[in-house]
Amino acid sequence: MSGHDVLATIDLGGTRTKFGLVRDGELLAAAAVAANAQGSLEAHLYKIVEQLRVMCARFGTTLEECRGLGLLSTGLVNNRAMRVLTTNGKYDDAINFDFPGWARARTGLELRMENDARGALIGEWRFGAGRGANNIVMVTIGTGIGTAVISEGRPLTGPHFSGGNLGGHIIINSGGRRCTCGAVGCLESEASGWVLPLLVKEHASHGESSLNGMEAIGFTELVAHAADGDTCAADVWAHCLRIWGEALVSFIHCFDPERIIVGGGVMNNPHPVLHDLRKSVANLAWTAEGQVEIVQAQHPDEAGLLGASALFYAPTIKPGLIHP
Amino acid sequence: MSGHDVLATIDLGGTRTKFGLVRDGELLAAAAVAANAQGSLEAHLYKIVEQLRVMCARFGTTLEECRGLGLLSTGLVNNRAMRVLTTNGKYDDAINFDFPGWARARTGLELRMENDARGALIGEWRFGAGRGANNIVMVTIGTGIGTAVISEGRPLTGPHFSGGNLGGHIIINSGGRRCTCGAVGCLESEASGWVLPLLVKEHASHGESSLNGMEAIGFTELVAHAADGDTCAADVWAHCLRIWGEALVSFIHCFDPERIIVGGGVMNNPHPVLHDLRKSVANLAWTAEGQVEIVQAQHPDEAGLLGASALFYAPTIKPGLIHP
Repeated sequence: MSGHDVLATIDLGGTRTKFGLVRDGELLAAAAVAANAQGSLEAHLYKIVEQLRVMCARFGTTLEECRGLGLLSTGLVNNRAMRVLTTNGKYDDAINFDFPGWARARTGLELRMENDARGALIGEWRFGAGRGANNIVMVTIGTGIGTAVISEGRPLTGPHFSGGNLGGHIIINSGGRRCTCGAVGCLESEASGWVLPLLVKEHASHGESSLNGMEAIGFTELVAHAADGDTCAADVWAHCLRIWGEALVSFIHCFDPERIIVGGGVMNNPHPVLHDLRKSVANLAWTAEGQVEIVQAQHPDEAGLLGASALFYAPTIKPGLIHP
Repeated sequence: MSGHDVLATIDLGGTRTKFGLVRDGELLAAAAVAANAQGSLEAHLYKIVEQLRVMCARFGTTLEECRGLGLLSTGLVNNRAMRVLTTNGKYDDAINFDFPGWARARTGLELRMENDARGALIGEWRFGAGRGANNIVMVTIGTGIGTAVISEGRPLTGPHFSGGNLGGHIIINSGGRRCTCGAVGCLESEASGWVLPLLVKEHASHGESSLNGMEAIGFTELVAHAADGDTCAADVWAHCLRIWGEALVSFIHCFDPERIIVGGGVMNNPHPVLHDLRKSVANLAWTAEGQVEIVQAQHPDEAGLLGASALFYAPTIKPGLIHP
């Protein structure tokens, strides 16, 4: 097989690094390793590249024959200079690491980079739940809450490269809970995975709750106990759904999307989350000129690698000329 | 004087219609009339055009000689098809009114249109407090709260033409006050001109307040009474400043601007509003890659007409190519 239409892709996450080969939006092969974020990024990437070489060999090609190397990273990413700007304590040598130079030297390939949340949205946009839309907000609800935005056919980026990515930190409950970001009452500090144990513990009927004393409380446990009639679990879950619905309304009012893609760990439970979010939006959002579709992410695991490959494709949807 | 470089401009507001002549970002002449929003838009525009003709004559030119007619309107505006989409009960005949056809028939001029908040930001961007910036959020705090956004060198618009314009309706206080828009706890329903009398009335020490029994309570009265030591006025004012600071943080986290322009009636009082907003942003916003300038609108009265003229200029700032 010729590798000329194959993209090598890497998605540097906080806990896992995924990597794989993508051709025309199809993931030919993929694997993941633990992130080793306390170690050196260069050593970590060395091992990834070795494994990508093995993958290529399995397809009868070589890494050098691939069309390019698409790489996503957590933190702020300068997608023009191809640099990581912030790491939040992970891979300290990532800051100012010369990714394009490293890629050329190690693989001979051209490298393109993007922030991981923006990259995952690009993957859904090109090859998944975002197809055909020109204006998309993606909200990923897991331990934290990540967001990304496609606006008028372009991934919103901004001068500090955080455009669309800090939607988990809109203030949704003035005077609320202190967030890890330093603000107070953020979407993420009001209703996300990391705050669930605190919400449960602070609930008035926590003492009688079947969640009392549980070590790990995630969305799965919360929904299961709520379904079993536990008041504390039901109240905390209803609170989360309400906050997320309000957040979607705020995103609609800010970005005017035609579609919202919801993903993340919260979708892995039997509760019809989208149904509740759609109801909130129908009740609260100001959408005089058309409803907003609210859909589930199509590639929860693969969107990042697909998006990393799409960094090498020309935009297929041209932005409209607003002021000629 | 030749009119070839002069733009005729009209800003259809909810209470007043402004109109004038603009050349190279300089307002040559301007006037305003009451909006008469209950009457017919066509009759209203007829009178405006007659007055624009008189203005032109004063400059030794004619309306027909002007380069074009720039028109702003409240409500959602389709800036491609040049239509008004919503009027909120004002000028019922504005919906589906053929503005370009009317302009050609009545004046022989090409017409371009925009929403009034977006138009005012375009005016500040080209000729005022937004000069030199490529990413701007404008927040106008008056009776209501209006917003508009320039993102990567383009006015954010969106498929339903509300992009960036509904920032007054991000939900900032989950479970808070019912807003005129149908949502609950919006920025505008938590701290804006129309809600001040309610905030004062609901305050615990309203009975002893010097504001008790006052008919009209605006920002000027609130700030004056707060400065005189009235607890109720001081608390409500502090509440408003806190909410607005939190809103700016949310806008920074959504849009990643390099500059925020603050305008509206709230700036017409001696309190250093910008100082407080800058402090909130410094304390709460996640700006790892650079601070955001917070500045005052430069043309509080004229930005609309200046922006209406700018609809005829090619963009001077090219959007960066994010994904080649």
